[in-house]
Amino acid sequence: MAKAPVLTPRADDFPRWYQDVLNKAELAENGPVRGTMVIRPYGYAIWERMQAEVDSRIKACGAQNAYFPLFIPESYFQREAEHVEGFSPELAVVTVAGGKELEEPVVVRPTSETMIGEYMAKWIQSYRDLPLLLNQWANVVRWELRPRLFLRTTEFLWQEGHTAHATREDARAYAERILHDVYEDFMVNVLAMPVVVGLKTTKERFAGAVNSLTCEAMMGDGKALQMGTSHEFGQNFAKVFGIQYLDAEGAQQTACTTSWGSSTRMIGGLIMAHGDDNGMRVPPRLAAVQVVVIAVRDEGEVVARCRALVDELRAAGVRAELDDKTGGSLGRRVTDWELKGVPLRLEIGPRDLADNSATLAYRISGRPKASIALTAIVSAAVEALEEEQAAVLAEALELRESRTVAAATLADAREGAAAGWARVPWSVIGADGEAELAQSGVTVRCLVRADGSLPDDDLEPDLVAYVARAY
Amino acid sequence: MAKAPVLTPRADDFPRWYQDVLNKAELAENGPVRGTMVIRPYGYAIWERMQAEVDSRIKACGAQNAYFPLFIPESYFQREAEHVEGFSPELAVVTVAGGKELEEPVVVRPTSETMIGEYMAKWIQSYRDLPLLLNQWANVVRWELRPRLFLRTTEFLWQEGHTAHATREDARAYAERILHDVYEDFMVNVLAMPVVVGLKTTKERFAGAVNSLTCEAMMGDGKALQMGTSHEFGQNFAKVFGIQYLDAEGAQQTACTTSWGSSTRMIGGLIMAHGDDNGMRVPPRLAAVQVVVIAVRDEGEVVARCRALVDELRAAGVRAELDDKTGGSLGRRVTDWELKGVPLRLEIGPRDLADNSATLAYRISGRPKASIALTAIVSAAVEALEEEQAAVLAEALELRESRTVAAATLADAREGAAAGWARVPWSVIGADGEAELAQSGVTVRCLVRADGSLPDDDLEPDLVAYVARAY
Repeated sequence: MAKAPVLTPRADDFPRWYQDVLNKAELAENGPVRGTMVIRPYGYAIWERMQAEVDSRIKACGAQNAYFPLFIPESYFQREAEHVEGFSPELAVVTVAGGKELEEPVVVRPTSETMIGEYMAKWIQSYRDLPLLLNQWANVVRWELRPRLFLRTTEFLWQEGHTAHATREDARAYAERILHDVYEDFMVNVLAMPVVVGLKTTKERFAGAVNSLTCEAMMGDGKALQMGTSHEFGQNFAKVFGIQYLDAEGAQQTACTTSWGSSTRMIGGLIMAHGDDNGMRVPPRLAAVQVVVIAVRDEGEVVARCRALVDELRAAGVRAELDDKTGGSLGRRVTDWELKGVPLRLEIGPRDLADNSATLAYRISGRPKASIALTAIVSAAVEALEEEQAAVLAEALELRESRTVAAATLADAREGAAAGWARVPWSVIGADGEAELAQSGVTVRCLVRADGSLPDDDLEPDLVAYVARAY
Repeated sequence: MAKAPVLTPRADDFPRWYQDVLNKAELAENGPVRGTMVIRPYGYAIWERMQAEVDSRIKACGAQNAYFPLFIPESYFQREAEHVEGFSPELAVVTVAGGKELEEPVVVRPTSETMIGEYMAKWIQSYRDLPLLLNQWANVVRWELRPRLFLRTTEFLWQEGHTAHATREDARAYAERILHDVYEDFMVNVLAMPVVVGLKTTKERFAGAVNSLTCEAMMGDGKALQMGTSHEFGQNFAKVFGIQYLDAEGAQQTACTTSWGSSTRMIGGLIMAHGDDNGMRVPPRLAAVQVVVIAVRDEGEVVARCRALVDELRAAGVRAELDDKTGGSLGRRVTDWELKGVPLRLEIGPRDLADNSATLAYRISGRPKASIALTAIVSAAVEALEEEQAAVLAEALELRESRTVAAATLADAREGAAAGWARVPWSVIGADGEAELAQSGVTVRCLVRADGSLPDDDLEPDLVAYVARAY
């Protein structure tokens, strides 16, 4: 008799499978206030690894971390017309504090363009102060009507970068640099998610932006997920907040600004891009635990040798953990590590030890377990981690390619988007086609040039649109 | 003619000196909403270093990071009587969200005992689930009537640990472990602040705690600052939130909980403990920049050699930075690095290079500059960093000892607290004396045993009270 599946199979009900993974792998659960989220230790450990990888890339691009207040005066929001229109329906407002009604209500930040714009205006005097490159790691709040853990929550954690530049060209170049050197590099090379990098259509732009650049990933069910965005604001915010500088000739100029963000939503993307019917599969470069060493039984030297092996692996730079919970059933313990998606398991029991070997199990590629001599185990694990990293990226790329169709008409595009993505000439769609697709829940995820590169704007000829259903 | 001081001298006006340091070293400024704070990049870099050091110690004590929501239903607060009384005057309340009046207002967390208590109750079933050791890095909000940057702000950043244990003894042992192994160790060995570790009086306990343990530091003006606290709640929260477990015999038991926190307030403490009339002095083990290599002029090989030296220092594990802003005046550049409190400066100009040497300047001990051969510079810097670390700790200890008096009466204690701290037999003070001292703005900071160790409770005989004015 086949054992009952731990999770709802993906093919039966993908959203329910996702919810099952969150529960069973102890990643997150609902908070008591509608749409809020409790991130449990295993989910948070994934976020800490994401933060470390993204943060080091941001710093390599020259931006500095800072921290701006959670509370924004309501009046700040009303200054940029498109921004206020975009965010008003989502704001949470504090009206009472310290036991009294506030004279001016304060908004809990949904994003910090307005707050940071105010300070940039103070800090920037001359062209020598530019570019000003800031980033913050923070929580933000957007009241959500249809919340879903990690993907769309009332409160989420993110980084938001905000920069000011002397010219539109500098601003655009930096927005692109962040898109490629931080987001795309991290997503492809660490998350093993082969994102498509493109330009948002006018309809899909961030509120107040003149251009929005995006990284879009394909989930296991063929839908798209926006994983990170980088926006050019031109002088929109700079004019409203007075971000001005004296140029080298002593003339007053208005700066150009950008903003860019990535959030805990990436955890949802990671789960849905790589997960299978046994749970998560975490790419080795991201994994907080890359190798779990499992003591099969508490007999003779087993636990001691397992502990020594964990130390050896750590000395070799591998993030290894010991599972010596020999009181529980081995099957259950293996199932739990599979749910958590730890890339490699090293199982050691009395028989393995008698044989001076350990059994290596591959969570990602699923290739057959191998018995490996204890003396060779560290180098075998290091090598296998790189192989599993390559395997999960190749698999995700294969999924994306096999489920992306070339479409020549709006009808074909809609059909392609029923099971995956469609690539369609943007000239076939246009603003009218976009509105029509929206009626079937299909959106233009981004525009790219025919060679896949990033367009300057949506007016270039021969652009290709990626259309899909999306989270 | 002596040059005008960059800062208000400490002896003239300590609070104003503090404010000057915040401005001139570009650490922080006021946010637009009363009591909120913008932490600028240099201030935030200090916080990141504090986070890294505290976080690794917390993890070494076995706690795991997680994240709980910012918004807490108002009803949660009303469950624990002392807790609600303690926090009610400080709460910020969201009453409108998503364009509508909320049915139940939500509180912006001032601390998360109630929220985390609710989830502990769900997650803990059996004694095997204990201890449950959680920590979160988060922002919290307490509406402040007399805000002061870093020391007391409406929103601040902190870590809050929350743990549940099977017995009161386990809970107390863990609260003490955090106090000593995380806070005291970090404060003494990294921040170079010789904190006094003791027990809070009943009056000074955290709202809902049965015991509060604290680390108290002396500031440059002789006042005390509470730098970190660790609380035992007994079963107070566990009863209210239903944190129960089945023991090994199958009987239902109520758990005991603790919480412990340290915050951005430590940055204020760092400034006021070690700062001098030239600005901050940052202990080397904490410093984000330990050594700044200053190219005196852009001439010949100077900048290239400076850059090479930065690389060499980094390769030796030193956090080094290059200052090649040779366009500005050297005096101004040196003043700025002194303001920021970077422990060592290595100045290299054409004359130094001709001599194959560099000039080493010591920000902390202030000992005379030394000319050092370039070949010996890295080892000299590494050694000097350790010496400066020891020097700043010794100086802080000397300050504390010279300004702490032994007092035998309430009047003597009050007098001692006018310029520093007083050690007084607790039996001389008691609850009545405590109330009397409070009238002159003097508080009992903590109680210790005669040998300096931590008492079990405030009923032990022969306890000694530290009394002081405090921030």
